Amino acid sequence: MKKTTTRLADGRELIYYDSRDDVVRDAVDHRPLDPVATASEIRHDRLLGDDVAIASHRQARTYHPPADECPLCPSLGGRLSEIPAPDYDVAVFENRFPSLAGDSGRCEVVCFTSDHDASFADLTAEQAALVLEAWTDRTAELSQLPGVEQVFCFENRGEEIGVTLGHPHGQIYAYPFTTPRTERMLRSLAAHREATGGNLFDDVLADELADGRRIVLEGEHWVVFVPYAAHWPYEVHLYPKRRVPDLLALDDAARTEFPQIYLEVLRRFDRIFDEGNGRGGRAAGRGGRAAGAARTPYIAAWHQAPLRAEHRAEFALHLELFTIRRTSGKLKFLAGSESGMNVFINDVPPEAAAERLREVASES
Amino acid sequence: MKKTTTRLADGRELIYYDSRDDVVRDAVDHRPLDPVATASEIRHDRLLGDDVAIASHRQARTYHPPADECPLCPSLGGRLSEIPAPDYDVAVFENRFPSLAGDSGRCEVVCFTSDHDASFADLTAEQAALVLEAWTDRTAELSQLPGVEQVFCFENRGEEIGVTLGHPHGQIYAYPFTTPRTERMLRSLAAHREATGGNLFDDVLADELADGRRIVLEGEHWVVFVPYAAHWPYEVHLYPKRRVPDLLALDDAARTEFPQIYLEVLRRFDRIFDEGNGRGGRAAGRGGRAAGAARTPYIAAWHQAPLRAEHRAEFALHLELFTIRRTSGKLKFLAGSESGMNVFINDVPPEAAAERLREVASES
Repeated sequence: MKKTTTRLADGRELIYYDSRDDVVRDAVDHRPLDPVATASEIRHDRLLGDDVAIASHRQARTYHPPADECPLCPSLGGRLSEIPAPDYDVAVFENRFPSLAGDSGRCEVVCFTSDHDASFADLTAEQAALVLEAWTDRTAELSQLPGVEQVFCFENRGEEIGVTLGHPHGQIYAYPFTTPRTERMLRSLAAHREATGGNLFDDVLADELADGRRIVLEGEHWVVFVPYAAHWPYEVHLYPKRRVPDLLALDDAARTEFPQIYLEVLRRFDRIFDEGNGRGGRAAGRGGRAAGAARTPYIAAWHQAPLRAEHRAEFALHLELFTIRRTSGKLKFLAGSESGMNVFINDVPPEAAAERLREVASES
Repeated sequence: MKKTTTRLADGRELIYYDSRDDVVRDAVDHRPLDPVATASEIRHDRLLGDDVAIASHRQARTYHPPADECPLCPSLGGRLSEIPAPDYDVAVFENRFPSLAGDSGRCEVVCFTSDHDASFADLTAEQAALVLEAWTDRTAELSQLPGVEQVFCFENRGEEIGVTLGHPHGQIYAYPFTTPRTERMLRSLAAHREATGGNLFDDVLADELADGRRIVLEGEHWVVFVPYAAHWPYEVHLYPKRRVPDLLALDDAARTEFPQIYLEVLRRFDRIFDEGNGRGGRAAGRGGRAAGAARTPYIAAWHQAPLRAEHRAEFALHLELFTIRRTSGKLKFLAGSESGMNVFINDVPPEAAAERLREVASES
């Protein structure tokens, strides 16, 4: 793997991650860009106890551009995008419309491939491994920035959840605080340690493996299951079997196995809603997807230990992947109960979700 | 006000609230309904510490029926709906597809008016006062049910947030636990009491009134403001000036003033996204709405003290009203940061939201 760090015309960082070591990345960004003027502000809600990022400059952000104006494609034929090179493997750059900026953190865009029409699920294992390297490296780099408390690598996929750029990409948020969701896990972890002396992540994983009904896929180093109290119609959690606090601490064996596990899960996600379609009953399209089938919208969220948490070694790195689609053509909305009271209603029993996700396994 | 309690064919309760005392409600539900078979189950998430309602029977619920099959319209001309009467003022009944049922609580539907094409904002002050009476009475009744810990009256409005029945209606959830959002407020309240001896709700309200920049509307008994750390593009909180823990404790003066305050705020919400439209610059449609203008999707959520909270008298009843629309034609989605980490990104500065909501005031 070769990493090349450079700058865009307005001073933002751009980092190439290449699988070949002999690639030269010296393309210059020739766009006449104004310096980025962001006004991101973190405000504390005294009643709810959380922090909100107020980012008004984002209202002007790029919104569903036509494919030939995609800012994440390579710069080719005189068309200048965010990536000045004529091709790339994986490219990461600072978001021009960041939710977090300056003292409030940092936002980056991760382009998974230069292929505009691909999805993460279409990547080869080698390409996915390179993305994992990029996530890991960015976590290391962003952790060094002053004020950063937690690094969050994620992917939003699908117009249904508001994705405005079709090019396959994810994002990284470097928060200047520990997020409320992680705070909740840390509280549960502390209470469980107090009560039992054990590690709650380890115990939940052991219980899921012993029960078995919600296990979707098990590798040598990773296990994938639908959680007992899943909040979303189809939701899986991917845990390395050996607990580590963050991506940097993953060992080579887990790192090597991850791409095949994750790609298989993503491909299954795209088959959940194929009608009357179990094992083998589908037309093989790109990445095993039925031709013309609607891609499943999803959010993929890497949970890593906050940088300065008191018992950070007890935290368990894991990936939470879920879709907001509850059945073919119907979405799960966060309405009164979820948004008003933070109580989730899930119409798909976790055991049924796990069964479906086993049913649509790839042929091997 | 006259209240009449009866039963639907499958045993569910139906309650009429009429403004006239001489109305007779003796219509019988003649539908051949099977008994409601629900399988709602509450599951505890050990890591997040919250409870999820798993309600698989809801997948079959009524989904965007044509207007002439609306289950919330009165029963007329041989067409039998959920309300057997040929007309009604306000009607409340147990949901046939409840998220919470049996030991897990209860879900009710509140029909605001028999007029299928109206919105809450179209109601007269008298009609809105009747809805307030219904909310108050249902809170009292549901609080008596065994196992109920918190009563939540709310309205989801708009297809954009997943509303599948166009008829103007709200819902009431009687939860068998204190909701996570309320827990957070109670925690902040306790910490503030400990630190200052004061009441956090009172202090926040006093600070908003003193600052003034986010005040949208002030009556004699109610004040409406955009919170300092608003989570949603347009979000307002309505507080009675005299703090009370729940709807039952509202005094007559606040009760009497509420309809005009709330109706005005709802009408302003429908005008937020009218292009180039300030005070008086619009065609007057129904309820003051510009003819043909898109109605603003919103969630309106009544926050009431949990029934058995330790310091419940310290809680402040209030209504939180917010829209997921961030600009004309664009929605705010809860994607990676919000759904993955519970960190909200808000693209509209609260002061700008308040200014817009003052700008679109009704002429008086």
